[in-house]
Amino acid sequence: MSEAGTDLDPERAAWLRLSLTPGVGPVTARRLLEAFGLPDAIFAASARTLTPLAGEPLARILAAPATDAQLTAIAATAHWLAQSPSHHLVTLADAAYPSGLLAMTDPPPLLYAIGRLELLAQPTLAIVGSRSATQQGAATAESFAAGLARAGLSIVSGLALGIDAAAHRGALKAAAEGARGSTVAVVGTGIDIVYPSSNRALTEQLRRQGLVLSELPLGTPAVAHNFPRRNRLIAGLSRGVLVVEAAVHSGSLITARLAAEQGREVFAIPGSIHSPVAKGCHRLIKDGAKLVESVQDILEELRVDTAPARTPDRQPAGEGRDAPVGNELPELQHRVLDALGHDPVGLDQLCERAGCAAGDLSAALLELELAQHVERLPGNRYQRLR
Amino acid sequence: MSEAGTDLDPERAAWLRLSLTPGVGPVTARRLLEAFGLPDAIFAASARTLTPLAGEPLARILAAPATDAQLTAIAATAHWLAQSPSHHLVTLADAAYPSGLLAMTDPPPLLYAIGRLELLAQPTLAIVGSRSATQQGAATAESFAAGLARAGLSIVSGLALGIDAAAHRGALKAAAEGARGSTVAVVGTGIDIVYPSSNRALTEQLRRQGLVLSELPLGTPAVAHNFPRRNRLIAGLSRGVLVVEAAVHSGSLITARLAAEQGREVFAIPGSIHSPVAKGCHRLIKDGAKLVESVQDILEELRVDTAPARTPDRQPAGEGRDAPVGNELPELQHRVLDALGHDPVGLDQLCERAGCAAGDLSAALLELELAQHVERLPGNRYQRLR
Repeated sequence: MSEAGTDLDPERAAWLRLSLTPGVGPVTARRLLEAFGLPDAIFAASARTLTPLAGEPLARILAAPATDAQLTAIAATAHWLAQSPSHHLVTLADAAYPSGLLAMTDPPPLLYAIGRLELLAQPTLAIVGSRSATQQGAATAESFAAGLARAGLSIVSGLALGIDAAAHRGALKAAAEGARGSTVAVVGTGIDIVYPSSNRALTEQLRRQGLVLSELPLGTPAVAHNFPRRNRLIAGLSRGVLVVEAAVHSGSLITARLAAEQGREVFAIPGSIHSPVAKGCHRLIKDGAKLVESVQDILEELRVDTAPARTPDRQPAGEGRDAPVGNELPELQHRVLDALGHDPVGLDQLCERAGCAAGDLSAALLELELAQHVERLPGNRYQRLR
Repeated sequence: MSEAGTDLDPERAAWLRLSLTPGVGPVTARRLLEAFGLPDAIFAASARTLTPLAGEPLARILAAPATDAQLTAIAATAHWLAQSPSHHLVTLADAAYPSGLLAMTDPPPLLYAIGRLELLAQPTLAIVGSRSATQQGAATAESFAAGLARAGLSIVSGLALGIDAAAHRGALKAAAEGARGSTVAVVGTGIDIVYPSSNRALTEQLRRQGLVLSELPLGTPAVAHNFPRRNRLIAGLSRGVLVVEAAVHSGSLITARLAAEQGREVFAIPGSIHSPVAKGCHRLIKDGAKLVESVQDILEELRVDTAPARTPDRQPAGEGRDAPVGNELPELQHRVLDALGHDPVGLDQLCERAGCAAGDLSAALLELELAQHVERLPGNRYQRLR
């Protein structure tokens, strides 16, 4: 390759150029690679040979030398790769390329990665859900991710706010405590971009202790149309998808459907019929997803070997979330908790149920909220956290 | 019948005596009725004729005159019947006998009823659940019952505290507002007993505006072992069972399983995975029950016609939903008659011809026999009488 005026070996430079050529999407790339073998063979071919596969205009572009813009991008990528040993390019031809993606009709020819590539060799499960999750939903995602990582699974998610972030956090926490599994984030921007910016600390931790993946060129900003592509990769990478809280029309449901189409298991956590963020999960269960109440439900379905994870003498405290709570609370708070249940309830209804004045109720609720017994939801509704 | 020193006609007195004979449960009663037709024919038979079907000790009891205890109970029942026009006895031979129960292997030979018998002709759905329901669960049961009653369903439940009571209340409220549907309570005590006593006002209302049913003799107190029998009737009476809140080991789950065994639809309302009373519903959904979020979910599944309740020309609502137009027999009985012809046919062959399950066939044959449409021949063969 003549354009290899970079630190990159010519073969990788050719992979990069292929992925950077406008008009070459994953499907065209796959067709060309099937015909020619490797990218440098594509670029060595004549426009006449390429035309039947790529069409005439694209064939002429492929047969011409790389553009200046491509050479600049290739040089920048070489520079990025040299910055850290944790920066990787993974091509379709590499052993590290995730086997789950190979089964797709349009596997990305190239993946950018930061972190522990070996996590791709572990069994993976995606956990996805609403960006506007409830605290209970986020806590559930975090606890499932931790439990599954302890059982050796790599948790795949999209590094969005809400459920995604909680799932990554849970798996990282388990990994930090020595769990076999960890977590893989697939981002819908260039891998060097942090988005959303409030996820900066989490992104840094993922790059160090987990793995971050992108199929998009360095510097690609957050653009809406790239996120469905990201969802497709999350589904492809995973043996199954767990949806924790999701609206009926949401990216999480698209990810779950993509997973089902690819023959992956879909799992969903149910919730109150009065909770808007449970509706997406309920839709999935109606359509055949497995209703999930515990980590064990998923492990059994995936037939993951769960050899003794913990010895009985070191059961961590506070893990029994079904334990009765609130015994130590003042009488009114106790009564409010009883009246509350795990479904969202409005203030008027709660007042009536608990049989107390509005002022007393508000005070009790505030105290309960501060003690993390209850959660305040949009529309002044409340529900129990435990 | 010589013991008819009561106000009761001899045929009903014989039905009562049959149901009051110790050792004659629904299964034995069915066997005897299949052999002899009606109860007075059983009591007219000799002990020698009865022995092969009932065993020798029971045969001797059946062939002897009624005991004093039986005569007293029959007289007391006659007195009870005379007390109010809303008090009824419904025997297997009566047109009002619920067709859903006929498909059971052990239909009660006799039902005691207070209230609107015509509710049994409407499509029915059971709503059951925990006695220790949350207030949210009770509110959900009440609102589903009201919505379903408005759509013309009779809501069947067990008049227990919690979900049962809430379901009855919701349906009664809708009925008071002019809904086509109402509610049927199946109790596990004698029908003249109020249990639990805190349900007294509700029981009175059910007797006036709904229907209360029992298969147990008058005066039977609340005894634990009678409640599973009650659950069996709730399942048998209903086209489907909706479970609202239930623990994993609960009578509600037994009712749902009995319903599933009888080919009925099972519906369950999901909840938080942290809520103990959602666990039973989640278990059912994992086992194949339909997850339900709205009244519409149930109506669609049952294909209940939710067209405007009444046509202006006063077409009676909810009349014989399975009956083909212009024929007084339920569809299955009609099919069995068609399959039967005037030559003796064995059960296996008949099953195949009519294309129905053995249990359904037996039920249809029993009804046809009691209505003197068919005759049972030696060797379990049947033929048409007309």
